[in-house]
This record gives sequence, structure tokens and C-alpha cells, in this order.
Amino acid sequence: MTLADLRTAHETTLDAAIKANAERTFHAHWPEAPSGKIYGETANDEALARFQSQLNNRFARLGDADEWIGEEVSPYGFDLGITYPAADVETLVSRSSAAQTAWQSLTPFDRATILVEALERGAKSFFEIGYATQHTTGQGFVMAFQASGPHAFDRALEATALGLAAQSSFTPGVMWTKSMGKISVSIEKTYRIVPRGINLVIGCSTFPVWNTVPGMFAGLVTGNAVIVKPHSGAVYPIAIVVAALRDVLAELGMDPNIIQMAVDTAAEPLTLHLVKHPSVSIIDYTGGPAFGAVVESAATEHRKAVFTEKAGVNCVILDSTEDLEKAMDNLAFSLTLYSGQMCTAPQNIFIAKDGMLVGGEHVSVDAVSAKLREKIDALVFNEKAGPGTLGAVQNPITAARVAEAAALGFEVVRSSEPVTQPGFDGSRSMSPLVLKTDTAHADVYTKEWFGPISFIVVTDSFEDSLNEVVSSIHQHGALSSLVYTTNAELMQTAEDAIVSAGAPVAFNFNSFVWVNQSAAFSDFHGTGCTPAGNATFADWQFVTNRYNVVGVRKQA
Amino acid sequence: MTLADLRTAHETTLDAAIKANAERTFHAHWPEAPSGKIYGETANDEALARFQSQLNNRFARLGDADEWIGEEVSPYGFDLGITYPAADVETLVSRSSAAQTAWQSLTPFDRATILVEALERGAKSFFEIGYATQHTTGQGFVMAFQASGPHAFDRALEATALGLAAQSSFTPGVMWTKSMGKISVSIEKTYRIVPRGINLVIGCSTFPVWNTVPGMFAGLVTGNAVIVKPHSGAVYPIAIVVAALRDVLAELGMDPNIIQMAVDTAAEPLTLHLVKHPSVSIIDYTGGPAFGAVVESAATEHRKAVFTEKAGVNCVILDSTEDLEKAMDNLAFSLTLYSGQMCTAPQNIFIAKDGMLVGGEHVSVDAVSAKLREKIDALVFNEKAGPGTLGAVQNPITAARVAEAAALGFEVVRSSEPVTQPGFDGSRSMSPLVLKTDTAHADVYTKEWFGPISFIVVTDSFEDSLNEVVSSIHQHGALSSLVYTTNAELMQTAEDAIVSAGAPVAFNFNSFVWVNQSAAFSDFHGTGCTPAGNATFADWQFVTNRYNVVGVRKQA
Repeated sequence: MTLADLRTAHETTLDAAIKANAERTFHAHWPEAPSGKIYGETANDEALARFQSQLNNRFARLGDADEWIGEEVSPYGFDLGITYPAADVETLVSRSSAAQTAWQSLTPFDRATILVEALERGAKSFFEIGYATQHTTGQGFVMAFQASGPHAFDRALEATALGLAAQSSFTPGVMWTKSMGKISVSIEKTYRIVPRGINLVIGCSTFPVWNTVPGMFAGLVTGNAVIVKPHSGAVYPIAIVVAALRDVLAELGMDPNIIQMAVDTAAEPLTLHLVKHPSVSIIDYTGGPAFGAVVESAATEHRKAVFTEKAGVNCVILDSTEDLEKAMDNLAFSLTLYSGQMCTAPQNIFIAKDGMLVGGEHVSVDAVSAKLREKIDALVFNEKAGPGTLGAVQNPITAARVAEAAALGFEVVRSSEPVTQPGFDGSRSMSPLVLKTDTAHADVYTKEWFGPISFIVVTDSFEDSLNEVVSSIHQHGALSSLVYTTNAELMQTAEDAIVSAGAPVAFNFNSFVWVNQSAAFSDFHGTGCTPAGNATFADWQFVTNRYNVVGVRKQA
Repeated sequence: MTLADLRTAHETTLDAAIKANAERTFHAHWPEAPSGKIYGETANDEALARFQSQLNNRFARLGDADEWIGEEVSPYGFDLGITYPAADVETLVSRSSAAQTAWQSLTPFDRATILVEALERGAKSFFEIGYATQHTTGQGFVMAFQASGPHAFDRALEATALGLAAQSSFTPGVMWTKSMGKISVSIEKTYRIVPRGINLVIGCSTFPVWNTVPGMFAGLVTGNAVIVKPHSGAVYPIAIVVAALRDVLAELGMDPNIIQMAVDTAAEPLTLHLVKHPSVSIIDYTGGPAFGAVVESAATEHRKAVFTEKAGVNCVILDSTEDLEKAMDNLAFSLTLYSGQMCTAPQNIFIAKDGMLVGGEHVSVDAVSAKLREKIDALVFNEKAGPGTLGAVQNPITAARVAEAAALGFEVVRSSEPVTQPGFDGSRSMSPLVLKTDTAHADVYTKEWFGPISFIVVTDSFEDSLNEVVSSIHQHGALSSLVYTTNAELMQTAEDAIVSAGAPVAFNFNSFVWVNQSAAFSDFHGTGCTPAGNATFADWQFVTNRYNVVGVRKQA
């Protein structure tokens, strides 16, 4: 395999991705269905066997090491027992520095083709990535397959293509000739891409691939060496992706340390040591707001580029709809999917005290609440779909938070109950808790209640609801918002107010698209302009802040 | 005049500028010659009359005010006596906030056409801008005309076009349809540009237009209201540009406060109050490194976007040349032009103790130094070209620094002497001081000696010189560097080392292009990756960090 092979093999893929980024129509390089027809009839069985043989073993695909560490526990109730190569911060950084020069000397296009090759290799392990994701994050298998497989890989391809497009926007070289009357003067100019340096990507426990690969691939395509610091509880899925890229680099005769894993444990975390290391110039962070603020402060103090996706408080406004059944079906799914553990899942549902207008008829707050409960019940108690949609709760703290919310003393619209996951008796699974309150309790519901917890908040009016949402965005940020209204004027008012506050907004979702999903090549994930985070997958800032252009001029 | 008129009038100009940005060939929308044939045979006389009638009068073109302030003094030896409308920080900010909403609701293309119209209006005042610049900065008239007129306006157009291109890279809206086997689901998506907010642009005393308009136009085209805070000693030139834009806005029925001037005095500066104001979200700063660091810290602390162009220590390496006469002609001009008061002017000239190879023959350090002195003398003592090339020294502190340098006790290659400017007996003009030293005195020459001061530094070898340059870039930053070598291997080594350190580099300049000049649409000014500043005119970062894209999704 040579670079020339990769150029030929992946040019069309990159061109299509660049076009999709610009046009933002539906585009998916990898089909999302976990289907044997697409990925091979034996793919699932082989992956399951590989997953099972990996349990209680060293993850050898990242190379050898003196020390092996790992502490992953499946939210479905068993230890994974997998260990990974350990390395200290200085070793990781010096390896990255050594690998950087050769990587940055490649053209952006060559880097991009290598990255696409790594994705194509990694895609052969989608089923294993699915099982690895299921048993680290708690996601149901189908969601785990999609979120860490095709959906994540499409976001990686999106970031790669965008980074390539950005670096290709200005010519790499030109003969510049200025006419000065009878004479002219010529200068031979080249414009060199200088990466900022080592790019640290800090992953999270709930989306260890989807939230990691955009920064990882954006950093790599712009010439930086990358160190991925996964959450100590969710290493396995992203390790498969990193190993695939290291394999490709090694086959090309390049230093595989262009991409490294920094595995640590909760007891001895590496994160802040890496963040503060003077050779680390770029930091991507996905995770909770509290530690995110620590990372941001440390990065800012040291003048590093930092891209964060923390979490916000996502809001819904219920005003009017033509079809309450469909609207509540959609909202119920968004609240139930992965037990509310998506950074885009709704939390606070605002409704005026007069209730909703449904096809022109008033429906009371209680009736709307009852309909939402009914729809959640229908999903949760569906034996085929329910357990897989809910999945398991990744962190015991999240489970405790559900109990804390239930004890607030608010009216319980729907109580959370344990859920059985077939085949996994020890699973930490539970159904969504829905509480009802009013704006007098804003001190409680305006904070983030991460997990299967939502609040129906009764307000005086639509305007009141909108003010609450805007204020919440300003204070806590948001990665999504959702409004149901058939009133064109209110729709425009809500759009202007929410967009100006900096949050994305969706209207009247009533079908097979949900507010907590964002589609690669089409939806920017987050906005970068609320307290929920300063970055977006994937806008120009996300790639162009990772390198500089330096001019070279030679007298011709 | 309507927006439709402006779209028709300026589309071609914008298209050509966008193309030039990508291709980086020679492009100039406004011819650089201060010629009556181009700009009208009466343009110069009318401008001179207007300049003279403006002296000792209110600058009424910015509107009325309760209080008028101004303290400009010509470096050619007289007070300008011009006053400008004063406003306090809260007034400025509240006016900007009020003007912002309508401005951001325009399309990027409409904003761009309004800005081009303002530039075309402003271009009618190039001669007045030239006189205003001459008598605030000290630049000779021709340079003042070019630097604040066509060259600056081309940089403004470059930033406008780049900002338009960035905002046009993703479609503003799309019907997204996902096929799901027998059914499909469609979502109507729009992507709204949300400007960060008020963009403060802090100008400097030496290039009050050239260094201000890139940030000003980048901020405006991306939808932000802009406040220009000029140096209190150089208000007049940029006030003409701001007034032209305010006129265009008013004629379109828009709020002219989309662009405002914040005029202050040295005794009561507004700068830090504006920098720290919570409604100010973006800061452009050009000026000295000490205050620049204060601005950067304040901006960083408050999580604002900040674009800086401070100053560095620019270095030259002399190794070998085919033509010492031409090389020293070029270097002498760079040292003499505007008395070394360009942020891109060379300061430290490194030469190995063996001297230079000239056409294969060794030429000693002393002979090379003598040749440089001879070339500076030839320029300075040329009655026609000398005074205009030198201009006057903007700041008395700079003049004092020349005396300080002369008293260092270093060998004087060329002493600085007073220079007479015909017609201006009180001009603060002087010729370049060139000193000779060696690396034992690095503590002296490695700091910035702003003004007509340069050091020939004798080193052990080319490698030694290059190490000095790289170390200087890392510590102090650089906005230019220049190497004379005919050795291809050394050229590549120098290019790799200097580019990796983050500074632009030029080789063997020996004609009518000088290292201190950067051409709009072709040369990035600065790199953004040395201590000399974090911004470049004009790369993607320079425009894309001024806004965010927020998605709106509607069930279709």
C-alpha cells in the first residue's frame, strides 16, 4: 500500500464529503443499519466472538507496553477486565513531538486520504465497536452500533473533509508578478501550513467515539499529532479506531505515534497534566461542565486553542400542534432514548397554564402531561423496543440523581422504575422520571439534571415560556431546543429569540427525526456560542483554529 | 440608492476579490500611484485645501456631539487642532447594541456590498487621507497615500471578500430528506449567522488605516457592530473612512451607529474600559507588545475573541549573494523607509564572522557593513527621494530611543543625524542608526528597538545566525524575516527552521519588493503563531472566529 494507492482510492469519497458539507443535504458514507446484507452476514457473529475473547485480556492492538491498565465496567453488570498499554505524560508527549514533523510535511490531501483509509479499516469493525460501546456506555446495541459506527465515522469524515477544504482554500504556491510600468517584478511565493502542535482530545463516557473523532480527525488532517485521552470507563470503542489508524500509518512506513492513546484510571488521572503540558497546543474536551470549566481555564491561561462541548439544559416549549399523538410520540422517544444521557436530550418542557392548542382545541396541561406519560409507557413497556431504546445508565451517580429528583416533592407525572434487560440481570436500567412544577421552582429545574429526568414546567404564557428558555440558554447553554407551535408568528418570534441566544432550535418534530440527533454533513452539532460549549461539529472554526499559514517569498 | 443598486454595482468587485484571495496572484482594486491621471487632476489640490480647512476645526463628518476632543500633533511640527465628537463608553456600547440587530439580519452579501460602496466613497478621499496620514504618522506623503489609501483599502476589500466567502461556504438553507426504505422524512433546515456581538478595533499611531480596516471590515461583514478606538494621536485618517461608511448607511436608511468612533485622549483613555465591557465580544488590537499583553489578558479573562498584531524583532541573515549592490540597495531601503517604524522593518542583521560570499568571493563583515552604510547614505542624501522615504518620527519616545541606542557603546556603522524636511522646519526627522555587535550582547539586541535602529550582529556561522533567529522568533515573535543565500541547501534549512518557528521568510530580495511590505490578496500579514501576534490579515481564522452558525430545523 502506497500513498498513491490511497489517493486513488479515496479521492471520490473526499470530494463527495466536501460537497455534502457545503450543500448539507442528506449524506452518509456508511449505511446506518447494523445489517448483515450491508456489512457481511458473518460480521455480527465474528464481532461478538472477538468481543468475548477480548474480555479479561490485554488490548494488544495498540502495541506492547511495560504496564497495562484498565477499569471498564459494563453498565449491563459485569467487569470488562480489559487492560491497555499505559504511558506517562512525558513519554506520550515526546513520542508525539517526534512523530509530528513527518506528518506535517505531508500535503493536506495525503493526510486526508490516510485518514479515510483508517476509517474504512475501522468500519470493518463496526459490530465490535457496537458491542464495545454498548458495554462501556450502556447504550442499546443498535444505538451503540450507529452512534459509534456509521454516525461517528461520518462525523470523522466530515471533519476530515472540512479540514482538507479549509487548507485547500488558498493556493499552496504562486508566481506573483507586479507590473510597474515598463518593468515588472516577480516573487515566487509558497504558503506553508504550520500545525499548532500536539492536539489532546479528551473523551467522555457516554459517546466515546462520536464525541472524540471530530476533534481527533480535525486535529490530524490539519497536521497535528494527536493524543486521545479517553474516559477511563470507555476506552475500548475508541481504542479500536485508534488502532486502525496506527496500523495504516505503520503499513505506510510512518510513525504510528502520530496518534496515541493516553489511558488512565479514575484514581490517577492524566487529563490535567496533559492539558497543562507546554507542548500540548490544542485541546478538545467533551464532558461535564464542572471539569470542562477547569480544562477551559487551564487552556486559556496557557493560550491554547480549546474546543469544548460540555452540556447545557435543553428546553422544549409546547404551544400548539395539529397532531398531539405524533408530537408526544416524538418527544417521548427523545426523553427515553439512552435514558436521557445524550447532551442533546430535552430536560425542561415549558407549557402555558392554559395548556396546548391541538387542532384549534384547548387541551389542558394535565391532559398533555398524561399523553406524554402514555407515550413513554408505550415505548418503555414495548418488550421488543423498550429495553434497547433505554439501554443502561452509564454512571451510578446518574442513577442516584434519579432518586434525588424523585424525592424533590414535585408532582410525579411518570415515576422511574427498574427495567429488565434480557440476558443482563445486573443491568443498571430504569425508565424516565417526569416531574411537574412551575416557575416558582426555577432554582431547581434550571440546573442540569443529567439522565432520565425531565420537568414539565407550567408558565403563564408562551412569552413566559420563551423568556424562560432564553434565560436558560444564556445561563446554562443548550445543545438543542424544540418548540411545538402552529402559529407562524410565534414560530418566528421563538426562532429569532432562541437563535439570537445562541442555541439551535427545532420545530414540530413529529416523525423519525428527533431533537437529540444531529446528522453529519448537515446539522452543526452545538453552536459554539452558549455556555454549553465553544465548538461545533464541524464549522470553519473547528478546523481553521488548529493551524496557521506561513508565507515564504523568494525573489524570482 | 438602494441595496439592489449596490448588489449590481459591486458584485464583480467582490467576485474578483474572492478569486484573488484564493489564487493569491497580483491583484489591486485601487491603483497605488497618487496620480491625477487616475484619481482626477484636481484631486490633490482639492484634498490639500480640504486638509488645510480641516485644521483647527471640528471634524463634523461624524455627526454632532456635546463634547469635542482631539490632540493630534503632526510629526512635521505643528498641532492639527482638530476635534472629534466625544462619547462615553456606555453611550457607545448602547448605540452599537441598538444598531446590531438590523445589521445582522442582512445577508452577508448585502453587508459586503454596503462595505464596498463605503470603500468606493472613501477612495474619493485618498489624497486627503494621504495628508491626514502624513501629518499624524509622520509618513512621507507618497507612502501615506499608498499605505492608508489603496493598500489599506485593498486589505479592507480582502477581509470583506474573505468574510463573505466564509459565510457563503455552507448553504443558508436546504430541504433535507432521509430515505428510510419505503418512507422518507424531510426537514427544512436553515443555518443562521449569529455575530458574536460588538467588535472593538483598537488602532495604532503609525498605520491608523492599514492596521485598522482589516479588523473593522472583517467584523462588519460578519454582522457585528464595530467601534473603532483610534490612537489619540492618529484619528483623522480613519475618521474619513468611518464617516464614509456612516454616510452610506444613513443614505440606505440604516443606523449609522453600526460603525462608531471612540475618540479619547492620552490623559483619559477609553481602551481598557471598552475591552472589559461585557457587551464587547471581539477585540482587534494593533500596537505595542506591552499594552497588547494587557489587552490580551483582559480579553482572555473575559472569554472574548481577540486578534492581535503587536510587534516582534525582525531578523535578517546575510550569507551569500550574486549581487551585493542590489541586495544592499534593497536592505537599505527597508531600513530607511518610514524610519524603521514599520512592524515589519528589519532590526537585527546576522552575519557570520567570515562575512558574505558574493559571486563566490569572500567579502568581509566590514566591507558588507560599509556597503550597507553606503546604500543608506545614497538614499538618505538623495534630495529628491530621501526625506520623503524617511518621513518623520511619530513619537518623541522613538526619537529618544535612537539616542539611547547610540549611547550603548557599540561600534557605529552609521550614525543617525537630523534630516531636514523641506517646508517643515519643525519636523522630527532623522536618518537610520546602524550599530555593530556580536552575540555576547544578545541581552541588548534581542529586545525590540522600535524606530530607525538596527544591529549588525556578528556570529560564528550561518547555523549560529539561524539559531539566533529561531530563538528570537520564539521569544519575541517576528512579522518578517529575510535571508540572503545562494546555497540551496542552506535556503531549505532556513526556510524549514523559520517557518516551523512561525515567522514568514523572504529570500534574496533585490528589486522593487521589500521585506517590510505585504501585498493584499497575496501575502498574509503576520502568521498568528508567534509572540508578535495571534492574527493574520487575512486568513480563515481572521473572519470565521467573529460569528457562529446556528441551525434551525422545521418538520416538513
